[in-house]
Amino acid sequence: MELTPLLNKQLKTPLYMQLYQYIKKEIETGGISPGTLLPPIRHLCEHLQLSKNTVESAYQQLTAEGYTESMPRICIKVLPLEKTLMPPSQLKVHTNREPKETEQSSAATYDFKYGDIDLSHFPFKTWRRCLQNALDSEDHDLFLYGDHKGDFGLRSELAKYLFQARGVRCVPEQIVICSGTQNAVGLLCQLLSMNGRLVAAENPGYDGVRSVFLNHGCAIQPIGLETDGINLSQLAASRAKLVYITPSHQFPYGMVLPIQKRLKLLEWASRENVYIIEDDYDSEFRYQGRPIPSLKALDKKENVIYLGTFSKSFLPAARLSYIVLPSKLADEFQEKLGRYSQSASPIIQKAMFLFMKEGFFERHIRKMKKVYQEKHKTLISAIKTHFGNDMEIIGEKAGLHILMKTGRRARDLIHKAEKLGVKVYQVSDFWLEPHESSSSIVMAGFGGLSAAEIEEGISILRKAWLSSSKQER
Amino acid sequence: MELTPLLNKQLKTPLYMQLYQYIKKEIETGGISPGTLLPPIRHLCEHLQLSKNTVESAYQQLTAEGYTESMPRICIKVLPLEKTLMPPSQLKVHTNREPKETEQSSAATYDFKYGDIDLSHFPFKTWRRCLQNALDSEDHDLFLYGDHKGDFGLRSELAKYLFQARGVRCVPEQIVICSGTQNAVGLLCQLLSMNGRLVAAENPGYDGVRSVFLNHGCAIQPIGLETDGINLSQLAASRAKLVYITPSHQFPYGMVLPIQKRLKLLEWASRENVYIIEDDYDSEFRYQGRPIPSLKALDKKENVIYLGTFSKSFLPAARLSYIVLPSKLADEFQEKLGRYSQSASPIIQKAMFLFMKEGFFERHIRKMKKVYQEKHKTLISAIKTHFGNDMEIIGEKAGLHILMKTGRRARDLIHKAEKLGVKVYQVSDFWLEPHESSSSIVMAGFGGLSAAEIEEGISILRKAWLSSSKQER
Ligand SMILES: Cc1ncc(COP(=O)(O)O)c(C=O)c1O
Ligand SMILES: Cc1ncc(COP(=O)(O)O)c(C=O)c1O
Repeated sequence: MELTPLLNKQLKTPLYMQLYQYIKKEIETGGISPGTLLPPIRHLCEHLQLSKNTVESAYQQLTAEGYTESMPRICIKVLPLEKTLMPPSQLKVHTNREPKETEQSSAATYDFKYGDIDLSHFPFKTWRRCLQNALDSEDHDLFLYGDHKGDFGLRSELAKYLFQARGVRCVPEQIVICSGTQNAVGLLCQLLSMNGRLVAAENPGYDGVRSVFLNHGCAIQPIGLETDGINLSQLAASRAKLVYITPSHQFPYGMVLPIQKRLKLLEWASRENVYIIEDDYDSEFRYQGRPIPSLKALDKKENVIYLGTFSKSFLPAARLSYIVLPSKLADEFQEKLGRYSQSASPIIQKAMFLFMKEGFFERHIRKMKKVYQEKHKTLISAIKTHFGNDMEIIGEKAGLHILMKTGRRARDLIHKAEKLGVKVYQVSDFWLEPHESSSSIVMAGFGGLSAAEIEEGISILRKAWLSSSKQER
Repeated sequence: MELTPLLNKQLKTPLYMQLYQYIKKEIETGGISPGTLLPPIRHLCEHLQLSKNTVESAYQQLTAEGYTESMPRICIKVLPLEKTLMPPSQLKVHTNREPKETEQSSAATYDFKYGDIDLSHFPFKTWRRCLQNALDSEDHDLFLYGDHKGDFGLRSELAKYLFQARGVRCVPEQIVICSGTQNAVGLLCQLLSMNGRLVAAENPGYDGVRSVFLNHGCAIQPIGLETDGINLSQLAASRAKLVYITPSHQFPYGMVLPIQKRLKLLEWASRENVYIIEDDYDSEFRYQGRPIPSLKALDKKENVIYLGTFSKSFLPAARLSYIVLPSKLADEFQEKLGRYSQSASPIIQKAMFLFMKEGFFERHIRKMKKVYQEKHKTLISAIKTHFGNDMEIIGEKAGLHILMKTGRRARDLIHKAEKLGVKVYQVSDFWLEPHESSSSIVMAGFGGLSAAEIEEGISILRKAWLSSSKQER
């Protein structure tokens, strides 16, 4: 440990006394706790630019008064105080969220949490080796700031991947690596000077991104959904110059925006000079029908800003996402945000680059598609088996979650499930304003649970919900 | 590789023909390059939900027309085209900065680049082991999103460290881990709803942070410097409710704000209800006198928002920094930014936690203080030896850089140095408006060079500058 008191030579109190008083006070107020070893005299002299005498005198005084004891080899140990230690009052912070969350999640046996992914099939060994190889690199840049837009190799691999998997044609210069989708949207708000301006967004939609817009001073214009996705005439009527949309899997409803609507949307955007932010967060995972290329793939006039993330397809803990900018915005990015350093670690980026380059990423996705498809099938059939017609399933086309709708209040259902150790989630936050439909829908993410756990979880849900519906009668 | 064409069953053109046309066009326009292996038939069938026949027919057609050739084991390889491949025109992006930067830095033999750090004393082995141990963790949370404010263990270690090294008293709940100082300031702009509001900042000052304020719609009120730091009466006159300041080492001038001024500043802030952002970026490295505790350490009324970074004390590539929030702001953070996921990787955070917990961080800093002090001494004495009174050294108290001032134009000096393979830097960006003093100052970071390189670099500077000053006559 080190100590950094404020010592003043100009004062009448000698330095050793000032040091002694400082340490004493810290011991009394709990800043330094019993059992702590004070810094060796030599270190403290060096650190504080004091003479050996000064520090020694302060330590002797403390020991003389019973605050500390000398240990062999010039260690000084802090002793317990008689009275209870009062932590200084300013150190109390009321935190609403932190403890609650930890408590809850540790209690649940089956947690259908959206955002969790399958870790049992994750290639930990390979990923570890990629990290290791990155760390073994001779390239010193890897340990400094790195390219401000992100590792060039990673961006090149991404350009290839996006073309092959999503039909996106871009060069690495258009790609900006970010540390998560919210980080990306924050940068876009700055790039497009969105403060005080209107953003159109699907309602319901992803609250995580919406809060970024709001915190950047945007107003959100909620746009309703039709069975095949965003309502285009409402959108046109909004007169917004920026739209945030999840066309591959509408979040949270899961519908896929059909090709005709995509073309209409793009035509409108080009006519009205609108930028569309396409959040393609989990498009890798679809279980029915043919893949539809991204909106960006159809974007001839460069109205689409494409967002992707490694959080679903790889690992949330990589904290890696990316923007594909239209080329005119790529120049503007350079000008306006060119002084920003990259926020994702070059080490993680390099490891990800290696993982992609060696073909592991492609293989991983191919495997995970099957894994999640299996889980998805299990989930749907478990719900059908246990609930039959009592339960409507929404969002069967979404990638890693579904919605369940009953005639009953979501809040009660969630509470009842939790009592039996199963966590499912409310969806009300996805609506901009409190909304009736949300009150009878619960959300179940299935990425983090095994097929067997999904089965078991749903069967417990039945117990929780059916028995209680009897009680209700 | 994977392909994601837009196929439409409703069209008259059969699916195999659509697929064939798509691939053919991609080959022709360079989207798929010669030598590429097309996906195995089985994969493509699965991916596109097509029959084996359809894919086979498309591939056969391509091979028949000489675009591809069949390889053993059902691989299909793309052949070179006769004509030169024209990359699609939309793929050209004008990038001002990227190639230029790489060119330049590779050319220089001695690069006095601010931001580079000493890597030759970095404990790579220990850091690698910490990362390894983090990856071996059984804790699944480590591979998901992690705590939105950052790893709790890391925040606890930071609270301890900040108390010991900087006199900051805080609890982990007040700490928010960020992915760099700019990321931190971006979050603060949102937290404090800074759009359209005034921020007072030292002039000259750190342009990296200033650009974040500007991009969040703030106006910057430049505050002049005195020999002992920020001009307090100018500051008071500004009527700003937020100040960004570098009190430990003014950036770029390096002066230390004395204790009397600190107390006055705090008193004013508390009286006027002002928040002070204290950027304590490189306070670990001071080479003269006793350490002064941070402004935050003196902040009884909780007006100071403290910023720290691991970029100087550890590794820029960790991309880890932190905010210490006053407790009332910690609550507000939860409310307003509580939905944001953490942007630093939980893996890196855990490794950093282990590195701190085991005492390596403290040891590292103790060592690096000596290393940098030695370099600093070498630099100063080399300048004195080679330039004598022709060169004024400014910022001798700064941590990892100094400023050199001559009567001559910085731009010429930089250019002349570069020709002989030495890079030093201009400082004009640190002034909010073009400013006369900046034109004769050059900046030299010394973190990344060894003592011998510093010696040699400065002696080359003398050659570059003295010989050319003769030419000028
Ligand atoms: C619609 C949507 N976009 C993006 C993300 C992923 O965000 P990130 O990249 O920050 O992990 C999510 C995850 O919850 C999401 O639901
Ligand atoms: C004044 C100042 N603050 C902070 C930083 C560090 O920023 P980061 O944490 O993004 O590496 C620097 C580095 O250049 C700086 O000069």
